[in-house]
Amino acid sequence: MAEGVTALAARHHPSVALHFHPQCFLSAGHFAGRDDQRAAAFIEVANDPSFDALWFGRGGYGSGRIAEEVLGKLNDAARDKAYLGYSDAGAMLAGLYASGFLSIAHGPMPADITRAGGEAAVMRALDYLMTRSTEALEPSVASSGKVVAFNLMTFSQIIGTPLQPDLTDHVLMLEEVSEYMYRIDRSLLHITSNKAVQRVAGIRLGRCSAIPDNDPPFGQTEVEIVQHWCKRSSIPYLGRADIGHDADNKIVPFGGLGQART
Amino acid sequence: MAEGVTALAARHHPSVALHFHPQCFLSAGHFAGRDDQRAAAFIEVANDPSFDALWFGRGGYGSGRIAEEVLGKLNDAARDKAYLGYSDAGAMLAGLYASGFLSIAHGPMPADITRAGGEAAVMRALDYLMTRSTEALEPSVASSGKVVAFNLMTFSQIIGTPLQPDLTDHVLMLEEVSEYMYRIDRSLLHITSNKAVQRVAGIRLGRCSAIPDNDPPFGQTEVEIVQHWCKRSSIPYLGRADIGHDADNKIVPFGGLGQART
Repeated sequence: MAEGVTALAARHHPSVALHFHPQCFLSAGHFAGRDDQRAAAFIEVANDPSFDALWFGRGGYGSGRIAEEVLGKLNDAARDKAYLGYSDAGAMLAGLYASGFLSIAHGPMPADITRAGGEAAVMRALDYLMTRSTEALEPSVASSGKVVAFNLMTFSQIIGTPLQPDLTDHVLMLEEVSEYMYRIDRSLLHITSNKAVQRVAGIRLGRCSAIPDNDPPFGQTEVEIVQHWCKRSSIPYLGRADIGHDADNKIVPFGGLGQART
Repeated sequence: MAEGVTALAARHHPSVALHFHPQCFLSAGHFAGRDDQRAAAFIEVANDPSFDALWFGRGGYGSGRIAEEVLGKLNDAARDKAYLGYSDAGAMLAGLYASGFLSIAHGPMPADITRAGGEAAVMRALDYLMTRSTEALEPSVASSGKVVAFNLMTFSQIIGTPLQPDLTDHVLMLEEVSEYMYRIDRSLLHITSNKAVQRVAGIRLGRCSAIPDNDPPFGQTEVEIVQHWCKRSSIPYLGRADIGHDADNKIVPFGGLGQART
Protein backbone atom coordinates (compact mmCIF):
# COMPACT_ATOMS: atom_id res chain seq x y z
CA MET A 1 0.00 0.00 0.00
CA ALA A 2 2.73 2.46 0.98
CA GLU A 3 4.73 1.49 -2.12
CA GLY A 4 1.74 2.06 -4.40
CA VAL A 5 1.02 5.47 -2.96
CA THR A 6 4.69 6.45 -3.09
CA ALA A 7 4.93 5.39 -6.76
CA LEU A 8 1.75 7.27 -7.62
CA ALA A 9 3.02 10.39 -5.90
CA ALA A 10 6.39 10.16 -7.68
CA ARG A 11 4.66 9.97 -11.07
CA HIS A 12 2.28 12.88 -10.58
CA HIS A 13 3.96 15.09 -8.02
CA PRO A 14 7.74 14.48 -8.40
CA SER A 15 8.46 17.18 -5.84
CA VAL A 16 6.57 15.48 -3.04
CA ALA A 17 8.48 13.57 -0.39
CA LEU A 18 6.19 11.08 1.34
CA HIS A 19 7.34 9.68 4.65
CA PHE A 20 5.48 6.70 6.09
CA HIS A 21 6.27 6.71 9.79
CA PRO A 22 7.40 3.26 11.00
CA GLN A 23 4.46 3.28 13.44
CA CYS A 24 2.14 2.77 10.45
CA PHE A 25 3.48 -0.76 10.15
CA LEU A 26 3.22 -1.73 13.82
CA SER A 27 0.49 -3.97 15.17
CA ALA A 28 -0.91 -4.25 18.69
CA GLY A 29 -4.24 -6.05 18.87
CA HIS A 30 -6.78 -3.92 17.03
CA PHE A 31 -4.37 -1.05 16.53
CA ALA A 32 -1.27 -0.02 14.56
CA GLY A 33 0.86 0.02 17.68
CA ARG A 34 0.19 0.70 21.33
CA ASP A 35 -1.46 3.99 22.24
CA ASP A 36 1.84 5.43 23.47
CA GLN A 37 3.54 4.46 20.21
CA ARG A 38 0.76 5.86 18.08
CA ALA A 39 0.60 9.09 20.10
CA ALA A 40 4.38 9.53 19.98
CA ALA A 41 4.42 9.05 16.20
CA PHE A 42 1.65 11.58 15.70
CA ILE A 43 3.32 14.13 17.95
CA GLU A 44 6.72 13.56 16.30
CA VAL A 45 5.39 14.23 12.80
CA ALA A 46 2.98 17.01 13.78
CA ASN A 47 5.62 18.93 15.73
CA ASP A 48 8.33 18.59 13.03
CA PRO A 49 8.43 21.80 10.90
CA SER A 50 10.10 19.90 8.04
CA PHE A 51 6.76 18.21 7.27
CA ASP A 52 4.06 20.30 5.56
CA ALA A 53 1.23 17.87 6.18
CA LEU A 54 0.17 14.99 8.36
CA TRP A 55 -1.81 12.56 6.25
CA PHE A 56 -3.73 9.91 8.19
CA GLY A 57 -2.84 6.49 6.79
CA ARG A 58 -6.20 4.85 7.26
CA GLY A 59 -9.34 4.74 9.36
CA GLY A 60 -10.72 1.89 11.45
CA TYR A 61 -10.81 2.82 15.10
CA GLY A 62 -8.29 4.38 17.41
CA SER A 63 -7.61 8.08 16.83
CA GLY A 64 -9.96 9.14 19.60
CA ARG A 65 -8.05 6.98 22.07
CA ILE A 66 -4.93 9.13 21.72
CA ALA A 67 -6.51 12.51 20.97
CA GLU A 68 -6.33 13.95 24.48
CA GLU A 69 -2.68 12.93 24.89
CA VAL A 70 -1.73 14.26 21.47
CA LEU A 71 -3.59 17.56 21.66
CA GLY A 72 -1.86 18.46 24.89
CA LYS A 73 1.60 18.16 23.33
CA LEU A 74 1.40 19.91 19.96
CA ASN A 75 3.64 22.92 19.23
CA ASP A 76 3.54 25.90 16.85
CA ALA A 77 4.87 23.79 13.97
CA ALA A 78 1.89 21.50 14.45
CA ARG A 79 -0.43 24.50 14.16
CA ASP A 80 1.14 25.41 10.79
CA LYS A 81 0.62 21.95 9.37
CA ALA A 82 -2.14 20.54 7.14
CA TYR A 83 -4.09 17.47 8.35
CA LEU A 84 -6.03 15.21 6.02
CA GLY A 85 -8.12 12.12 6.72
CA TYR A 86 -11.64 10.88 7.32
CA SER A 87 -13.67 8.10 8.94
CA ASP A 88 -12.24 7.32 12.40
CA ALA A 89 -9.64 10.07 11.90
CA GLY A 90 -12.55 12.47 12.37
CA ALA A 91 -12.21 12.15 16.14
CA MET A 92 -8.70 13.64 15.95
CA LEU A 93 -9.69 16.16 13.25
CA ALA A 94 -12.53 17.30 15.52
CA GLY A 95 -10.16 17.77 18.42
CA LEU A 96 -7.67 19.68 16.26
CA TYR A 97 -10.47 21.93 15.01
CA ALA A 98 -11.77 22.43 18.54
CA SER A 99 -8.21 23.43 19.45
CA GLY A 100 -8.16 26.17 16.80
CA PHE A 101 -6.03 24.47 14.16
CA LEU A 102 -6.66 26.10 10.77
CA SER A 103 -5.67 23.63 8.08
CA ILE A 104 -7.74 20.50 8.57
CA ALA A 105 -9.51 18.63 5.80
CA HIS A 106 -11.80 15.62 5.43
CA GLY A 107 -10.72 13.56 2.45
CA PRO A 108 -9.04 10.45 1.05
CA MET A 109 -6.21 8.61 2.78
CA PRO A 110 -3.38 6.40 1.48
CA ALA A 111 -5.36 3.24 2.29
CA ASP A 112 -7.97 4.30 -0.27
CA ILE A 113 -5.58 3.14 -2.99
CA THR A 114 -6.83 -0.40 -2.36
CA ARG A 115 -10.38 0.58 -3.46
CA ALA A 116 -11.63 0.10 -7.03
CA GLY A 117 -10.68 3.39 -8.66
CA GLY A 118 -8.77 4.28 -5.53
CA GLU A 119 -5.81 5.83 -7.38
CA ALA A 120 -8.08 8.75 -8.29
CA ALA A 121 -8.94 9.26 -4.63
CA VAL A 122 -5.30 9.22 -3.58
CA MET A 123 -4.37 11.59 -6.44
CA ARG A 124 -7.17 13.94 -5.35
CA ALA A 125 -5.74 14.01 -1.86
CA LEU A 126 -2.20 14.62 -3.15
CA ASP A 127 -3.42 17.36 -5.50
CA TYR A 128 -5.11 19.03 -2.58
CA LEU A 129 -2.14 18.70 -0.26
CA MET A 130 0.32 19.96 -2.92
CA THR A 131 -1.66 22.73 -4.60
CA ARG A 132 -4.95 23.15 -2.67
CA SER A 133 -6.56 22.22 -5.98
CA THR A 134 -10.12 23.53 -6.05
CA GLU A 135 -11.07 20.63 -8.34
CA ALA A 136 -10.47 18.30 -5.42
CA LEU A 137 -13.10 20.01 -3.31
CA GLU A 138 -16.59 18.86 -2.50
CA PRO A 139 -18.70 20.95 -4.92
CA SER A 140 -20.81 22.83 -2.37
CA VAL A 141 -17.75 24.07 -0.46
CA ALA A 142 -17.20 26.92 -2.94
CA SER A 143 -20.63 28.40 -2.30
CA SER A 144 -20.82 27.64 1.42
CA GLY A 145 -19.43 29.53 4.35
CA LYS A 146 -17.92 27.46 7.12
CA VAL A 147 -18.00 23.71 6.50
CA VAL A 148 -16.93 20.50 8.21
CA ALA A 149 -17.40 16.83 7.40
CA PHE A 150 -17.50 13.73 9.55
CA ASN A 151 -18.39 10.10 9.61
CA LEU A 152 -21.76 9.94 11.32
CA MET A 153 -20.95 7.39 14.02
CA THR A 154 -17.55 8.91 14.72
CA PHE A 155 -19.19 12.29 15.21
CA SER A 156 -21.95 10.84 17.38
CA GLN A 157 -19.38 9.40 19.75
CA ILE A 158 -17.57 12.69 20.34
CA ILE A 159 -20.79 14.51 21.26
CA GLY A 160 -20.52 15.87 24.79
CA THR A 161 -16.74 15.37 25.00
CA PRO A 162 -13.87 17.86 24.80
CA LEU A 163 -13.31 16.78 21.18
CA GLN A 164 -16.65 18.23 20.05
CA PRO A 165 -15.91 21.46 18.15
CA ASP A 166 -18.13 24.54 18.10
CA LEU A 167 -19.91 24.21 14.76
CA THR A 168 -22.05 27.33 15.02
CA ASP A 169 -22.95 28.53 11.50
CA HIS A 170 -21.13 25.61 9.87
CA VAL A 171 -22.54 23.36 7.20
CA LEU A 172 -22.14 19.88 8.71
CA MET A 173 -21.60 17.10 6.16
CA LEU A 174 -22.09 13.53 7.36
CA GLU A 175 -21.40 10.21 5.68
CA GLU A 176 -21.70 6.63 6.86
CA VAL A 177 -20.67 3.11 5.92
CA SER A 178 -21.64 -0.38 7.06
CA GLU A 179 -24.21 0.72 9.62
CA TYR A 180 -27.76 -0.59 9.82
CA MET A 181 -30.43 1.93 8.87
CA TYR A 182 -31.77 1.94 12.42
CA ARG A 183 -28.32 2.93 13.63
CA ILE A 184 -28.09 5.71 11.07
CA ASP A 185 -31.42 6.90 12.44
CA ARG A 186 -30.27 6.61 16.05
CA SER A 187 -27.03 8.47 15.37
CA LEU A 188 -28.88 11.28 13.62
CA LEU A 189 -31.38 11.47 16.49
CA HIS A 190 -28.41 11.71 18.85
CA ILE A 191 -26.57 14.38 16.90
CA THR A 192 -29.57 16.59 16.16
CA SER A 193 -30.68 16.43 19.82
CA ASN A 194 -27.48 18.15 20.93
CA LYS A 195 -28.07 21.85 21.60
CA ALA A 196 -24.68 22.91 20.23
CA VAL A 197 -25.17 20.94 17.01
CA GLN A 198 -28.53 22.69 16.60
CA ARG A 199 -26.58 25.90 15.95
CA VAL A 200 -25.15 24.60 12.64
CA ALA A 201 -26.14 26.37 9.42
CA GLY A 202 -27.42 23.09 8.03
CA ILE A 203 -26.68 19.45 7.37
CA ARG A 204 -25.69 17.84 4.08
CA LEU A 205 -25.84 14.07 3.75
CA GLY A 206 -22.93 12.26 2.12
CA ARG A 207 -23.21 8.73 0.86
CA CYS A 208 -24.36 5.97 3.21
CA SER A 209 -22.90 2.82 1.71
CA ALA A 210 -22.81 -0.90 2.44
CA ILE A 211 -25.88 -0.63 4.69
CA PRO A 212 -26.68 -4.13 6.00
CA ASP A 213 -30.25 -5.31 5.48
CA ASN A 214 -32.58 -4.13 8.21
CA ASP A 215 -35.00 -6.82 9.42
CA PRO A 216 -37.77 -5.76 9.03
CA PRO A 217 -37.06 -3.10 6.37
CA PHE A 218 -36.56 0.18 8.19
CA GLY A 219 -39.23 1.98 6.19
CA GLN A 220 -37.29 5.17 5.41
CA THR A 221 -34.32 5.99 3.19
CA GLU A 222 -31.28 7.72 4.63
CA VAL A 223 -32.44 10.98 3.00
CA GLU A 224 -35.88 10.68 4.58
CA ILE A 225 -34.23 9.98 7.92
CA VAL A 226 -31.98 13.03 7.86
CA GLN A 227 -34.86 15.18 6.61
CA HIS A 228 -36.98 13.93 9.51
CA TRP A 229 -34.42 14.77 12.18
CA CYS A 230 -33.47 18.09 10.60
CA LYS A 231 -37.12 19.12 10.61
CA ARG A 232 -37.56 17.97 14.20
CA SER A 233 -34.54 19.94 15.38
CA SER A 234 -35.11 23.01 13.14
CA ILE A 235 -31.82 22.41 11.33
CA PRO A 236 -31.93 23.19 7.58
CA TYR A 237 -31.37 20.12 5.40
CA LEU A 238 -29.26 21.33 2.50
CA GLY A 239 -29.15 18.27 0.25
CA ARG A 240 -26.47 15.74 -0.56
CA ALA A 241 -22.70 16.02 -0.14
CA ASP A 242 -20.15 14.39 -2.44
CA ILE A 243 -18.35 12.51 0.31
CA GLY A 244 -18.35 8.91 1.44
CA HIS A 245 -16.34 5.76 2.00
CA ASP A 246 -15.51 5.42 -1.69
CA ALA A 247 -13.15 6.57 -4.44
CA ASP A 248 -15.32 9.61 -5.22
CA ASN A 249 -14.87 11.06 -1.75
CA LYS A 250 -14.19 14.79 -2.28
CA ILE A 251 -12.28 17.06 0.03
CA VAL A 252 -13.87 19.28 2.66
CA PRO A 253 -11.54 21.86 4.24
CA PHE A 254 -12.72 22.50 7.79
CA GLY A 255 -13.90 26.06 8.14
CA GLY A 256 -14.42 26.37 4.39
CA LEU A 257 -12.39 28.22 1.80
CA GLY A 258 -11.99 31.18 4.11
CA GLN A 259 -9.87 28.97 6.36
CA ALA A 260 -8.00 26.80 3.89
CA ARG A 261 -4.42 27.85 3.34
CA THR A 262 -3.21 28.39 -0.22
CA MET B 1 -45.56 -13.85 23.86
CA ALA B 2 -48.29 -11.79 25.54
CA GLU B 3 -50.30 -14.97 26.23
CA GLY B 4 -47.30 -16.66 27.84
CA VAL B 5 -46.57 -13.71 30.09
CA THR B 6 -50.24 -13.36 31.03
CA ALA B 7 -50.47 -17.06 31.92
CA LEU B 8 -47.28 -16.88 33.96
CA ALA B 9 -48.55 -13.84 35.84
CA ALA B 10 -51.92 -15.51 36.52
CA ARG B 11 -50.19 -18.55 38.05
CA HIS B 12 -47.80 -16.68 40.31
CA HIS B 13 -49.50 -13.36 40.97
CA PRO B 14 -53.26 -13.98 40.66
CA SER B 15 -54.00 -10.43 41.72
CA VAL B 16 -52.10 -8.84 38.83
CA ALA B 17 -54.02 -7.47 35.86
CA LEU B 18 -51.74 -7.22 32.85
CA HIS B 19 -52.89 -5.03 30.00
CA PHE B 20 -51.02 -5.26 26.69
CA HIS B 21 -51.81 -2.04 24.86
CA PRO B 22 -52.95 -2.69 21.26
CA GLN B 23 -50.02 -0.56 20.07
CA CYS B 24 -47.69 -3.40 21.11
CA PHE B 25 -49.04 -5.41 18.19
CA LEU B 26 -48.78 -2.70 15.53
CA SER B 27 -46.06 -2.65 12.91
CA ALA B 28 -44.65 0.28 10.91
CA GLY B 29 -41.33 -0.47 9.25
CA HIS B 30 -38.78 -1.00 12.02
CA PHE B 31 -41.20 -0.01 14.78
CA ALA B 32 -44.29 -1.22 16.63
CA GLY B 33 -46.42 1.51 15.14
CA ARG B 34 -45.75 5.02 13.92
CA ASP B 35 -44.10 7.44 16.32
CA ASP B 36 -47.41 9.24 16.97
CA GLN B 37 -49.10 5.91 17.73
CA ARG B 38 -46.31 4.76 20.02
CA ALA B 39 -46.16 8.11 21.82
CA ALA B 40 -49.94 8.23 22.26
CA ALA B 41 -49.97 4.71 23.71
CA PHE B 42 -47.18 5.52 26.15
CA ILE B 43 -48.85 8.73 27.27
CA GLU B 44 -52.25 7.01 27.60
CA VAL B 45 -50.92 4.31 29.90
CA ALA B 46 -48.53 6.55 31.82
CA ASN B 47 -51.16 9.18 32.53
CA ASP B 48 -53.86 6.67 33.58
CA PRO B 49 -53.96 6.40 37.41
CA SER B 50 -55.63 2.98 37.19
CA PHE B 51 -52.30 1.48 36.11
CA ASP B 52 -49.60 1.03 38.76
CA ALA B 53 -46.77 0.37 36.33
CA LEU B 54 -45.72 0.83 32.74
CA TRP B 55 -43.72 -2.22 31.68
CA PHE B 56 -41.81 -1.84 28.43
CA GLY B 57 -42.72 -4.75 26.13
CA ARG B 58 -39.35 -5.15 24.48
CA GLY B 59 -36.19 -3.38 23.35
CA GLY B 60 -34.84 -2.97 19.83
CA TYR B 61 -34.75 0.66 18.85
CA GLY B 62 -37.27 3.45 19.05
CA SER B 63 -37.95 4.77 22.56
CA GLY B 64 -35.58 7.70 22.09
CA ARG B 65 -37.50 8.78 18.99
CA ILE B 66 -40.62 9.54 21.05
CA ALA B 67 -39.03 10.55 24.35
CA GLU B 68 -39.21 14.33 23.86
CA GLU B 69 -42.85 14.17 22.76
CA VAL B 70 -43.81 11.85 25.62
CA LEU B 71 -41.95 13.66 28.40
CA GLY B 72 -43.68 16.91 27.57
CA LYS B 73 -47.13 15.41 28.10
CA LEU B 74 -46.93 13.33 31.28
CA ASN B 75 -49.16 14.19 34.26
CA ASP B 76 -49.06 13.59 38.02
CA ALA B 77 -50.40 10.05 37.63
CA ALA B 78 -47.41 9.34 35.39
CA ARG B 79 -45.09 10.56 38.16
CA ASP B 80 -46.68 8.10 40.61
CA LYS B 81 -46.16 5.13 38.30
CA ALA B 82 -43.40 2.52 38.17
CA TYR B 83 -41.44 2.05 34.91
CA LEU B 84 -39.50 -1.10 34.10
CA GLY B 85 -37.43 -2.01 31.07
CA TYR B 86 -33.89 -2.12 29.68
CA SER B 87 -31.87 -2.09 26.46
CA ASP B 88 -33.30 0.52 24.09
CA ALA B 89 -35.89 1.47 26.72
CA GLY B 90 -32.97 3.06 28.56
CA ALA B 91 -33.33 6.19 26.42
CA MET B 92 -36.83 6.75 27.81
CA LEU B 93 -35.84 5.64 31.33
CA ALA B 94 -33.01 8.17 31.21
CA GLY B 95 -35.38 10.94 30.17
CA LEU B 96 -37.86 10.01 32.91
CA TYR B 97 -35.05 10.03 35.47
CA ALA B 98 -33.75 13.35 34.15
CA SER B 99 -37.32 14.64 34.59
CA GLY B 100 -37.36 13.69 38.27
CA PHE B 101 -39.49 10.56 38.13
CA LEU B 102 -38.88 8.42 41.20
CA SER B 103 -39.86 4.85 40.40
CA ILE B 104 -37.79 3.72 37.44
CA ALA B 105 -36.02 0.40 37.18
CA HIS B 106 -33.74 -1.43 34.75
CA GLY B 107 -34.81 -5.03 34.42
CA PRO B 108 -36.50 -7.79 32.42
CA MET B 109 -39.33 -7.19 29.99
CA PRO B 110 -42.16 -9.41 28.69
CA ALA B 111 -40.18 -10.26 25.55
CA ASP B 112 -37.57 -11.97 27.75
CA ILE B 113 -39.97 -14.91 28.09
CA THR B 114 -38.70 -16.12 24.70
CA ARG B 115 -35.16 -16.60 26.08
CA ALA B 116 -33.92 -19.91 27.41
CA GLY B 117 -34.86 -19.70 31.09
CA GLY B 118 -36.78 -16.55 30.31
CA GLU B 119 -39.72 -17.38 32.58
CA ALA B 120 -37.47 -16.74 35.56
CA ALA B 121 -36.60 -13.30 34.20
CA VAL B 122 -40.25 -12.41 33.67
CA MET B 123 -41.15 -13.74 37.13
CA ARG B 124 -38.37 -11.63 38.63
CA ALA B 125 -39.80 -8.55 36.97
CA LEU B 126 -43.33 -9.36 38.16
CA ASP B 127 -42.12 -10.04 41.68
CA TYR B 128 -40.42 -6.69 41.68
CA LEU B 129 -43.40 -4.82 40.25
CA MET B 130 -45.85 -6.51 42.67
CA THR B 131 -43.88 -6.60 45.91
CA ARG B 132 -40.59 -4.72 45.33
CA SER B 133 -38.96 -8.05 46.14
CA THR B 134 -35.40 -7.50 47.30
CA GLU B 135 -34.46 -10.92 45.91
CA ALA B 136 -35.04 -9.52 42.43
CA LEU B 137 -32.42 -6.82 42.90
CA GLU B 138 -28.93 -6.69 41.49
CA PRO B 139 -26.80 -7.78 44.49
CA SER B 140 -24.71 -4.63 44.85
CA VAL B 141 -27.76 -2.37 45.00
CA ALA B 142 -28.32 -3.10 48.69
CA SER B 143 -24.88 -1.80 49.67
CA SER B 144 -24.69 1.04 47.17
CA GLY B 145 -26.09 4.54 47.35
CA LYS B 146 -27.62 5.91 44.19
CA VAL B 147 -27.52 3.53 41.24
CA VAL B 148 -28.61 3.42 37.61
CA ALA B 149 -28.14 0.89 34.82
CA PHE B 150 -28.03 1.23 31.06
CA ASN B 151 -27.16 -0.53 27.88
CA LEU B 152 -23.78 0.89 26.89
CA MET B 153 -24.59 1.98 23.32
CA THR B 154 -28.00 3.33 24.32
CA PHE B 155 -26.35 5.43 27.01
CA SER B 156 -23.59 6.60 24.67
CA GLN B 157 -26.15 7.95 22.25
CA ILE B 158 -27.97 10.09 24.82
CA ILE B 159 -24.76 11.79 25.94
CA GLY B 160 -25.02 15.53 25.38
CA THR B 161 -28.79 15.47 24.85
CA PRO B 162 -31.68 16.54 27.11
CA LEU B 163 -32.22 12.85 27.95
CA GLN B 164 -28.88 12.59 29.77
CA PRO B 165 -29.62 12.52 33.52
CA ASP B 166 -27.40 14.00 36.22
CA LEU B 167 -25.62 10.94 37.59
CA THR B 168 -23.47 12.71 40.16
CA ASP B 169 -22.58 10.25 42.94
CA HIS B 170 -24.40 7.38 41.22
CA VAL B 171 -22.99 3.93 40.59
CA LEU B 172 -23.39 3.54 36.82
CA MET B 173 -23.94 -0.06 35.67
CA LEU B 174 -23.45 -0.78 31.99
CA GLU B 175 -24.14 -3.89 29.92
CA GLU B 176 -23.86 -4.64 26.22
CA VAL B 177 -24.89 -7.20 23.62
CA SER B 178 -23.92 -7.93 20.02
CA GLU B 179 -21.35 -5.15 19.72
CA TYR B 180 -17.79 -5.62 18.48
CA MET B 181 -15.13 -5.21 21.13
CA TYR B 182 -13.77 -2.11 19.38
CA ARG B 183 -17.24 -0.58 19.64
CA ILE B 184 -17.46 -1.43 23.32
CA ASP B 185 -14.12 0.35 23.68
CA ARG B 186 -15.28 3.35 21.64
CA SER B 187 -18.51 3.68 23.61
CA LEU B 188 -16.66 3.54 26.92
CA LEU B 189 -14.16 6.13 25.66
CA HIS B 190 -17.13 8.30 24.71
CA ILE B 191 -18.97 7.93 27.98
CA THR B 192 -15.98 8.38 30.26
CA SER B 193 -14.87 11.48 28.32
CA ASN B 194 -18.07 13.31 29.27
CA LYS B 195 -17.46 15.71 32.16
CA ALA B 196 -20.87 15.03 33.74
CA VAL B 197 -20.36 11.28 33.63
CA GLN B 198 -17.02 11.77 35.36
CA ARG B 199 -18.95 12.80 38.47
CA VAL B 200 -20.38 9.29 38.98
CA ALA B 201 -19.39 7.37 42.10
CA GLY B 202 -18.11 4.54 39.94
CA ILE B 203 -18.86 2.15 37.11
CA ARG B 204 -19.85 -1.50 37.33
CA LEU B 205 -19.71 -3.65 34.23
CA GLY B 206 -22.61 -5.96 33.45
CA ARG B 207 -22.35 -8.81 31.01
CA CYS B 208 -21.19 -8.12 27.46
CA SER B 209 -22.64 -10.99 25.47
CA ALA B 210 -22.75 -12.20 21.86
CA ILE B 211 -19.69 -10.12 21.00
CA PRO B 212 -18.88 -10.71 17.29
CA ASP B 213 -15.31 -11.74 16.52
CA ASN B 214 -12.99 -8.78 16.19
CA ASP B 215 -10.55 -9.07 13.25
CA PRO B 216 -7.79 -8.87 14.36
CA PRO B 217 -8.51 -9.87 17.98
CA PHE B 218 -9.01 -6.67 19.97
CA GLY B 219 -6.33 -7.50 22.49
CA GLN B 220 -8.26 -6.61 25.65
CA THR B 221 -11.23 -8.14 27.46
CA GLU B 222 -14.27 -6.01 28.26
CA VAL B 223 -13.11 -5.84 31.88
CA GLU B 224 -9.67 -4.63 30.84
CA ILE B 225 -11.32 -2.06 28.58
CA VAL B 226 -13.56 -0.60 31.27
CA GLN B 227 -10.68 -0.62 33.76
CA HIS B 228 -8.57 1.29 31.24
CA TRP B 229 -11.13 4.03 30.64
CA CYS B 230 -12.07 4.29 34.32
CA LYS B 231 -8.42 4.79 35.19
CA ARG B 232 -7.96 7.37 32.43
CA SER B 233 -11.00 9.36 33.56
CA SER B 234 -10.43 8.92 37.31
CA ILE B 235 -13.72 7.05 37.71
CA PRO B 236 -13.60 4.19 40.25
CA TYR B 237 -14.15 0.78 38.66
CA LEU B 238 -16.27 -1.13 41.14
CA GLY B 239 -16.40 -4.60 39.58
CA ARG B 240 -19.08 -6.58 37.80
CA ALA B 241 -22.84 -6.06 37.83
CA ASP B 242 -25.38 -8.88 37.57
CA ILE B 243 -27.19 -7.40 34.58
CA GLY B 244 -27.20 -8.19 30.87
CA HIS B 245 -29.21 -9.28 27.86
CA ASP B 246 -30.04 -12.64 29.41
CA ALA B 247 -32.39 -14.47 31.76
CA ASP B 248 -30.21 -13.65 34.78
CA ASN B 249 -30.66 -9.91 34.33
CA LYS B 250 -31.33 -8.53 37.83
CA ILE B 251 -33.25 -5.39 38.67
CA VAL B 252 -31.65 -2.02 39.31
CA PRO B 253 -33.99 0.63 40.76
CA PHE B 254 -32.81 4.03 39.54
CA GLY B 255 -31.63 6.10 42.46
CA GLY B 256 -31.09 3.00 44.58
CA LEU B 257 -33.11 1.68 47.50
CA GLY B 258 -33.50 5.15 48.91
CA GLN B 259 -35.62 6.01 45.88
CA ALA B 260 -37.49 2.78 45.24
CA ARG B 261 -41.08 2.83 46.46
CA THR B 262 -42.31 0.00 48.66
